Amino acid sequence: MIIIMRPQVTEAEIQGVETKLKSLGLKANISRGVERTIIGAIGDERKLNKETFLALPGVDNVMRVVKPYKIVAREWHQEDTIVDIKGIPIGGNTIQIIAGPCSVETQEQMDSAAKNIAKVGCRLMRGGAFKPRTSPYSFQGKGLEGLKIFRQAASKYNLPIVTELMDVRYLDDFLKQGVEVIQIGTRNMQNFDLLKEVGKTHIPVILKRGLCATISEWLMSAEYIAAGGNHNIILCERGIRSFETAYRNVLDVTAIPVLKKETHLPVIVDPSHSGGKAYLVPALAKAAIAAGADGLLIEMHPTPCDAWCDADQALTPDELEKLMPELRAITQAVGRDM
Amino acid sequence: MIIIMRPQVTEAEIQGVETKLKSLGLKANISRGVERTIIGAIGDERKLNKETFLALPGVDNVMRVVKPYKIVAREWHQEDTIVDIKGIPIGGNTIQIIAGPCSVETQEQMDSAAKNIAKVGCRLMRGGAFKPRTSPYSFQGKGLEGLKIFRQAASKYNLPIVTELMDVRYLDDFLKQGVEVIQIGTRNMQNFDLLKEVGKTHIPVILKRGLCATISEWLMSAEYIAAGGNHNIILCERGIRSFETAYRNVLDVTAIPVLKKETHLPVIVDPSHSGGKAYLVPALAKAAIAAGADGLLIEMHPTPCDAWCDADQALTPDELEKLMPELRAITQAVGRDM
Amino acid sequence: MIIIMRPQVTEAEIQGVETKLKSLGLKANISRGVERTIIGAIGDERKLNKETFLALPGVDNVMRVVKPYKIVAREWHQEDTIVDIKGIPIGGNTIQIIAGPCSVETQEQMDSAAKNIAKVGCRLMRGGAFKPRTSPYSFQGKGLEGLKIFRQAASKYNLPIVTELMDVRYLDDFLKQGVEVIQIGTRNMQNFDLLKEVGKTHIPVILKRGLCATISEWLMSAEYIAAGGNHNIILCERGIRSFETAYRNVLDVTAIPVLKKETHLPVIVDPSHSGGKAYLVPALAKAAIAAGADGLLIEMHPTPCDAWCDADQALTPDELEKLMPELRAITQAVGRDM
Amino acid sequence: MIIIMRPQVTEAEIQGVETKLKSLGLKANISRGVERTIIGAIGDERKLNKETFLALPGVDNVMRVVKPYKIVAREWHQEDTIVDIKGIPIGGNTIQIIAGPCSVETQEQMDSAAKNIAKVGCRLMRGGAFKPRTSPYSFQGKGLEGLKIFRQAASKYNLPIVTELMDVRYLDDFLKQGVEVIQIGTRNMQNFDLLKEVGKTHIPVILKRGLCATISEWLMSAEYIAAGGNHNIILCERGIRSFETAYRNVLDVTAIPVLKKETHLPVIVDPSHSGGKAYLVPALAKAAIAAGADGLLIEMHPTPCDAWCDADQALTPDELEKLMPELRAITQAVGRDM
Repeated sequence: MIIIMRPQVTEAEIQGVETKLKSLGLKANISRGVERTIIGAIGDERKLNKETFLALPGVDNVMRVVKPYKIVAREWHQEDTIVDIKGIPIGGNTIQIIAGPCSVETQEQMDSAAKNIAKVGCRLMRGGAFKPRTSPYSFQGKGLEGLKIFRQAASKYNLPIVTELMDVRYLDDFLKQGVEVIQIGTRNMQNFDLLKEVGKTHIPVILKRGLCATISEWLMSAEYIAAGGNHNIILCERGIRSFETAYRNVLDVTAIPVLKKETHLPVIVDPSHSGGKAYLVPALAKAAIAAGADGLLIEMHPTPCDAWCDADQALTPDELEKLMPELRAITQAVGRDM
Repeated sequence: MIIIMRPQVTEAEIQGVETKLKSLGLKANISRGVERTIIGAIGDERKLNKETFLALPGVDNVMRVVKPYKIVAREWHQEDTIVDIKGIPIGGNTIQIIAGPCSVETQEQMDSAAKNIAKVGCRLMRGGAFKPRTSPYSFQGKGLEGLKIFRQAASKYNLPIVTELMDVRYLDDFLKQGVEVIQIGTRNMQNFDLLKEVGKTHIPVILKRGLCATISEWLMSAEYIAAGGNHNIILCERGIRSFETAYRNVLDVTAIPVLKKETHLPVIVDPSHSGGKAYLVPALAKAAIAAGADGLLIEMHPTPCDAWCDADQALTPDELEKLMPELRAITQAVGRDM
Repeated sequence: MIIIMRPQVTEAEIQGVETKLKSLGLKANISRGVERTIIGAIGDERKLNKETFLALPGVDNVMRVVKPYKIVAREWHQEDTIVDIKGIPIGGNTIQIIAGPCSVETQEQMDSAAKNIAKVGCRLMRGGAFKPRTSPYSFQGKGLEGLKIFRQAASKYNLPIVTELMDVRYLDDFLKQGVEVIQIGTRNMQNFDLLKEVGKTHIPVILKRGLCATISEWLMSAEYIAAGGNHNIILCERGIRSFETAYRNVLDVTAIPVLKKETHLPVIVDPSHSGGKAYLVPALAKAAIAAGADGLLIEMHPTPCDAWCDADQALTPDELEKLMPELRAITQAVGRDM
Repeated sequence: MIIIMRPQVTEAEIQGVETKLKSLGLKANISRGVERTIIGAIGDERKLNKETFLALPGVDNVMRVVKPYKIVAREWHQEDTIVDIKGIPIGGNTIQIIAGPCSVETQEQMDSAAKNIAKVGCRLMRGGAFKPRTSPYSFQGKGLEGLKIFRQAASKYNLPIVTELMDVRYLDDFLKQGVEVIQIGTRNMQNFDLLKEVGKTHIPVILKRGLCATISEWLMSAEYIAAGGNHNIILCERGIRSFETAYRNVLDVTAIPVLKKETHLPVIVDPSHSGGKAYLVPALAKAAIAAGADGLLIEMHPTPCDAWCDADQALTPDELEKLMPELRAITQAVGRDM
């Protein structure tokens, strides 16, 4: 940690910082420059809060030198993590396409979806039984009943399931239903109690990025799960909020190479929620793979016009089928397989 | 709801929309303009999802006419709501200053804080026993023990307490400790299960705005609480995220008059978290009252330099004491009292 | 244009809107719904200002139905525009890579750059003689002398040049030097007098997107150039500003398919300025082509460590050479050539 | 400047940084910490570009210690600057309200506006003869003729005029018409050639903040003007762009105390353009003064419904008259006069 003092700093103020550092078990390296005095903290800065020093008299600014995350940091774990989901790897050379409808509606809908997903060659299935909806008057998901419908449909085609957990009280039910991948949604990226609970299991977790979360905050949320002992974490970029109104969210494609540098965890992308329109999905899906993503989370609904939520962003089975070889071409162009 | 069709729309596509509207119990008003055909939905549009229509062939755009919130809307409830907290009104002509430390640390700290708060004339006290922290390695709050410490300190000075609930599993403990005001924090503004649970109680709720929540989304979260039966809701603006790095968040002062037009609920402002620096608090606090806020949530710590979190944003007792008459002057200038 | 009236609207207010519409040569279609009265304007809404109607008594909201741009809109010009630069097409099936240093420094630097650019197979060269710099104390570009240096270096290798015009007073010099492509930079996207002047020429223009310009505003700036008679416009996405601090700007990859739908103009991407770091360029360049971009603007410097500006974002000649076949692979995967 | 090296840095890389610093006339202070080696630059860091060092091998991050602006910095000029406009001070204890229509339309309109402005006690008048409009098809301002109309109307009531300059080629006309205050608009905040030209005059300049300009970038633009010799600079906050769509822009009220700390220049606020709606002006105007602004720029039109642009954000003469005593009350509450 680097502590920059104000221009007319006094010796007493410099000593105040030094004393505080010592009381926290670190040493001070004091450098008196032409315009500013700068104090470097020698020791493990992860123990320190920036704010503690910003509150001291004479301090102008404080900068961290070391990244605040550790278990998830590539700095401490060089090789890529591959999360194994019933033998299906996420991370590594193979790209996975996870497809399925936004929400579980009926057994027929899920059976039809599962059949199509298996047919086009996807190896995992997504679907929401518990839905976070902006309005209390919108369809809130089928709940536990939906989870059972989903389980039954997916099992028929041997597809591991990915589904969102919103409330700690339902974790046991997820375990009972053998959910293979728990999704932590955008709105819960900083629901720390929920992160702690899934951190105690060993079930793979897809951690979606918050709508305006920085990459650092996102990795700190992953660190919450990892700190509990669960290292089976997959990061999912799903668009961030901006001023633009021509589409729903900006897909942050730059986050992909940044994450590849900062962390060893696999990174997937949700091109459906980010753009919010079916017509945008092919371009965003290809861009994500070209930029280095390890997989995609794509919405597909047997009959999008009848979908109970987000009808305008789901692909039809035919559109997904047409997209698959296009994605395969990009995958090969970047030297990977699908 | 207004449905705008594409330029070269066909009659079959127009009929498709009409059929869908009828199936949902509404009528269609079709207007063929020079460049576009436009279909107006006649009936209760709150039942409709925009996406359902965006997914239909020939549809270019869909716009809502009616606001999605109802119970919290001023349109349906003209007079200002005044939330009563043990005889202390929030909303109405009197402005309330709620002060206290970021987090509960020790009994001495809370006793000292409570004493100072009562002394300067504040009538409610804030403090966090459960703390949402970006890092799993930061102090996470004293938990239940902290709640008891807080209760004891505040009761000595007859100060109702405001404290954050992060996890549904602790609601019973909050009830047992007689928490007078439950705070729903920024990160939980769209934790819908938590909103539903506090909606079932009658305890006043301070609902903080999410870091990048639109005003409409925020009011929809309030609607979640109200829909459960709890109408004792206070909205708290606490800064939104932007590109600026010179301070923590932008205080959205414009939200105050917008909310006053859109909703009957009281609106308070947290000038401490929004700016993130003690030196900004006086200017932001005065601006908030000048713009029409009904109260403030201010961080004050007996000795900020020793605070366990957010040390650089808390006022000292002396600073708070000096600020109070300045706030009173602004209050009088806008024709209100404190 | 759709005009939505307030809930308790009076007949006089409705007539006021009707009268205003008539005075502007349009007709009113009045629809009295369950909760709201809605007035549709029949006629050419491009003549109307939203604000004129928002200011009338009884009006709650006003929504445009027709896009505000016309010459650049795909709606009015279905086939893709191909801009011809001395026989080199931008737009169409072939992807162009425009490379070169951020700023013109010396004849040796530019000669070396041109040689490398030609060698790796790029067909156009970029370089700045006039530099928009945040600080008045930073290197401001070599000016006219730089333009001549650039001209000489590029001509030796038959490379048309792309260079930024910041000030209307230098347009004649650009014409005299035979600049093949004028770049309008991010900070000048809404310098309307500059747009009008380049609109009077027939020189191809690369119009970079403003740092927080919406796609609609950007297309309106293109419309300024087109309205002057110059239809040789190339749009360049170069990242938009967000809250994220891990890189410089967010590359808005979603803008590519949106632009392809909205306009017939070619779209290129600048992966160097958007990320602001050389290590991000390969991933962003590949993502841009995968998403449908028609070309790239890449910074390359013979010796980046010695560059006079933006040293950390330029590729070395070797890095560019290594990148070219990777880009070619993506190009082929999307069925195009390079 | 602080240069943070990568974890596994080599001695050669450290020496590379040292050599570079020496070549630029600075010394290196090398500090080898537990996890990182950090190099401090001893000397005038304003000569250095961050990018130069970020491009060197082994460098992880670079942080500035000293602010990049100097003439406009409070650090170098402690007392507040008061800009004198024909005897009317901006800055200091007196708050100035500058009012007038968005654009000059007719002599009658401007005469009527001037009369009302003088009547309610405002001492400066604003109005636009050259208008930056998003669309080439919108009214672009009356140009020089408008300037003359404005001059005549304002002179009758002895009101100095504030008007926007968009194009360097019109500066002479502004001088000829004796424009008392030149406004540099939002879209031209980084039109550096324009800044340099007004920097050569001694006419007071109102420099509006760019739509997504950081405070630091804004001060650097002021530094451009100051570096030319013109220190008569007034900063004008007018709202920044965000994700919120309930109003036009977020008034960045926090910028006011930040600017008061960072610079000695006066700061005014435009509550009309920021919110974009007349009903928001009173709340925003009061908030601005409460937060420490030195003045306001308010749109007032004799008959807003007939205004040729931004009709919905102008106050009527009666609304302005009613607002003045409310602003005076806030002014007195903060110990200033009007």
